[in-house]
Amino acid sequence: MTATTEPLPNGKPNLLAAKRLGIQSVQEAQIFMRKDCHVCRSEGFSAHARVLVSHNGKSVVANLYQVTSDIVAMDEVGMSDSAWDSLALHDGAMVTISHPPPLESLGAVRGKVYGKRFDSASLKEIVTDIQAGRYSDIQLSAFVTACAARPLAREEICALTQAMVDAGDRITWNKRPIVDKHCVGGLPGNRTTPIVVAIVAACGLTIPKTSSRAITSPAGTADTMETLAPIDLDIPTMRRVVEREGGCIVWGGAARLSPTDDILIRVENVLDLDAEAQLVASILSKKIAAGATHIVLDLPVGPTAKVRTREAAEALADSLAEIGAEFGLVVRTVLTDGTQPIGRGIGPALEARNVLDVLQIRQGAPEDLRQRALVLAAHILELGGAAGPGEGAALATATLDSGRAWTKFQRICEAQGGMRVPRVAAYRRVIAAATGGQVTTLDNRKLAKIAKLAGAPEDNAAGLELHVKLGDKIQPRQPLYTVHSESPGELAYALNYARANTDIIGVL
Amino acid sequence: MTATTEPLPNGKPNLLAAKRLGIQSVQEAQIFMRKDCHVCRSEGFSAHARVLVSHNGKSVVANLYQVTSDIVAMDEVGMSDSAWDSLALHDGAMVTISHPPPLESLGAVRGKVYGKRFDSASLKEIVTDIQAGRYSDIQLSAFVTACAARPLAREEICALTQAMVDAGDRITWNKRPIVDKHCVGGLPGNRTTPIVVAIVAACGLTIPKTSSRAITSPAGTADTMETLAPIDLDIPTMRRVVEREGGCIVWGGAARLSPTDDILIRVENVLDLDAEAQLVASILSKKIAAGATHIVLDLPVGPTAKVRTREAAEALADSLAEIGAEFGLVVRTVLTDGTQPIGRGIGPALEARNVLDVLQIRQGAPEDLRQRALVLAAHILELGGAAGPGEGAALATATLDSGRAWTKFQRICEAQGGMRVPRVAAYRRVIAAATGGQVTTLDNRKLAKIAKLAGAPEDNAAGLELHVKLGDKIQPRQPLYTVHSESPGELAYALNYARANTDIIGVL
Repeated sequence: MTATTEPLPNGKPNLLAAKRLGIQSVQEAQIFMRKDCHVCRSEGFSAHARVLVSHNGKSVVANLYQVTSDIVAMDEVGMSDSAWDSLALHDGAMVTISHPPPLESLGAVRGKVYGKRFDSASLKEIVTDIQAGRYSDIQLSAFVTACAARPLAREEICALTQAMVDAGDRITWNKRPIVDKHCVGGLPGNRTTPIVVAIVAACGLTIPKTSSRAITSPAGTADTMETLAPIDLDIPTMRRVVEREGGCIVWGGAARLSPTDDILIRVENVLDLDAEAQLVASILSKKIAAGATHIVLDLPVGPTAKVRTREAAEALADSLAEIGAEFGLVVRTVLTDGTQPIGRGIGPALEARNVLDVLQIRQGAPEDLRQRALVLAAHILELGGAAGPGEGAALATATLDSGRAWTKFQRICEAQGGMRVPRVAAYRRVIAAATGGQVTTLDNRKLAKIAKLAGAPEDNAAGLELHVKLGDKIQPRQPLYTVHSESPGELAYALNYARANTDIIGVL
Repeated sequence: MTATTEPLPNGKPNLLAAKRLGIQSVQEAQIFMRKDCHVCRSEGFSAHARVLVSHNGKSVVANLYQVTSDIVAMDEVGMSDSAWDSLALHDGAMVTISHPPPLESLGAVRGKVYGKRFDSASLKEIVTDIQAGRYSDIQLSAFVTACAARPLAREEICALTQAMVDAGDRITWNKRPIVDKHCVGGLPGNRTTPIVVAIVAACGLTIPKTSSRAITSPAGTADTMETLAPIDLDIPTMRRVVEREGGCIVWGGAARLSPTDDILIRVENVLDLDAEAQLVASILSKKIAAGATHIVLDLPVGPTAKVRTREAAEALADSLAEIGAEFGLVVRTVLTDGTQPIGRGIGPALEARNVLDVLQIRQGAPEDLRQRALVLAAHILELGGAAGPGEGAALATATLDSGRAWTKFQRICEAQGGMRVPRVAAYRRVIAAATGGQVTTLDNRKLAKIAKLAGAPEDNAAGLELHVKLGDKIQPRQPLYTVHSESPGELAYALNYARANTDIIGVL
């Protein structure tokens, strides 16, 4: 059925000279071509096409913008920084522009929208296409939304996890156990990781901790840790840190562990969606890729935390444990109190200062953060065999209170590239109570939103500092919290929201 | 709770001089600012922020791209054409850039993802935000995907329809009935509308037909009609055409009838998704806004048509009739054969030529297209009272065969701005049968895909021309279809797909 009777006309080759336009796009690559250049005309590109840009054996799918001005010449193609970097170009390099092959894996996404199960092959294909940059924002969003609206079955989550592991690098360690911890998030300020890693490593266990940046929160552990030390370590550097100190706290994305996760996270962030399947695959794929064998999970539960009920928490814990077991992981889940933020700071640098207070055993260090870190460290010490059953808590407390954890933390920071001092924001404003009474509620989501509006996590000094906790008795005009921001515009933006939402801290 | 203790620092106002960059973006507005300009710094915009751009009382939400080169100066903001046009700018106009208010309506989209019903107020808010350009592609895609994955209940579809009507203009007519027709689509080449309108208007009924451009198909009626006459008429012009000739065939978007539909269609097109709720709201909102009172719907059913089973067709017909009734519309649905394309052409100009063949009663005009148009016209003539029950078919046939429909069609084209001759594509290639036998299947979707890969509907001459129908006996090397394209690149792209899919036309 493929006989042809007319010759295919040979056009000019689809070559244009690359020009770096210095445009920063986050993930979607962009190119700019004259609407009337020979390539647009011969290929018949439409005004908003997805095109395949190739150079020297590398290729990237980009959004094409047609241009009628002289920001590019007729024989040039303007490139955004991400397009430029993916192809490792130099100025004037000749690039080929053509139609990308049809995105076949989108058919499986469409099937999922209508309730069909993913099979392993289609999830593998989807993740491969996403990792290669073949999904546009519209298509990424459909995948993320479909997985939230049509919850994935266990086998689908396993296959998604495996595909995400396979899309990146993988670290193997020549010893066991390799312990790890993770918090499911949704609780502002719950920054136990640096403390837990310091305690556990000081007790001789191996804990190569990789963390994420914020998904929908004002700070991820990676964002917070970055205010204290470099976190974008490659795998050989990370391995050297762990071999020397027994632990590290690095950004998973820099190590290319499950890198697709970071692409999905950007979209989840815009939508404020965090589906169970993606949550589980995100957590486990990073742990598997990092070579962990024993994991303790912190699962905060509360009406405004990410997980709102004990039933939902138990279902998620089961899902994590069972899917973890499929990959040979021992997963222990700890349900914790998620009714209010932990510590006082919300935002990378503000949380980092609370972490330092606990590690340095300072007077006035947030007791809730200290206790939460000790509980989790205790579980890991037992799970990893450094303490007998029921003996983890005493060992964790002794390690922290003796200063051994603080010493270990400083050594880890030095090994990662040198310890840093967290910044203080340029603009601050106190929000005070209108009336006196007792603090009865703190809305985690709205507090997190204020911190984000103030600029967190992009501006690491931005966020807010809480001055009250549940149950506190307060006077009229007593400070409730302070908003921190690096720009007057964002400060105003956060304050507008704070003023429009008088139910953020309930006082009765 | 809003007392403040520190003054808000006053920055320089967020003003920059507008510069038109001549960049064509389809719907998302884009702006380009120096990363180090005073506005980016004082507002703390991140690399891929959504920003509010305002000038002279108008405003638009745009994607911000930060620039490190000199395509814009420090005191300038570069604007895409769509941003420029929405603000009606002139060069050097001072525009204000600020943070947009939080997109509250996205909360309802998130609720729908997790299975919560939309209420009328939230759908109204969503449609208003979409129409105002406040939804990014990621957010639009989440809305479209959520509506497909979590089918909307009747009240939700009614509310969506009402919100879409309210977002645009509305035409009222000082007579009744106002008849109309619509085809649910999915059947390539099913271009009955121009023929039906000509017959019905020639019989004295009033049929102000507004049509859509392609959603997921290689041609919408508006695309096809555009090759024969101007279709982007404003409402006063459309009204003059209808008052003079009793009918018109115009693009609904140009008349701003349910304009949000066109924004959603672009996203549905990328995803190849067309959920029932959006289908119903799309059809009915355009009809209601156009002032129709009596509607006949053509619903083709077949294994590769948009509606695949009789049950699904009947459910959709019920939904359209019942929701139509809520708005006072009389809706009659006609289930038709959707097992193969209608006519021979697939693509705007190729379909237009088939339409002309039928209207001009030419020898060799496609009989299936003629019959389908007559059946639909007959139903409308009866529904609108121009023919008694059972007498519609005879009147429709007489009107077509006497040449009265052809005369009416020419008068309508003249009234719309002048009749045009459809283009012929520059590049054509015949696909021939590998083996002989009988044609047993035609895959509507794959045939449509080839036409789209060849450049339809953007290039209106692109598409394909079928040389065989179901049941035809053919010889080896006998032509099956001819691919038409306006560029060698797209021709090659379509042929690659045709060669990789040998099951498009089944021969046994």
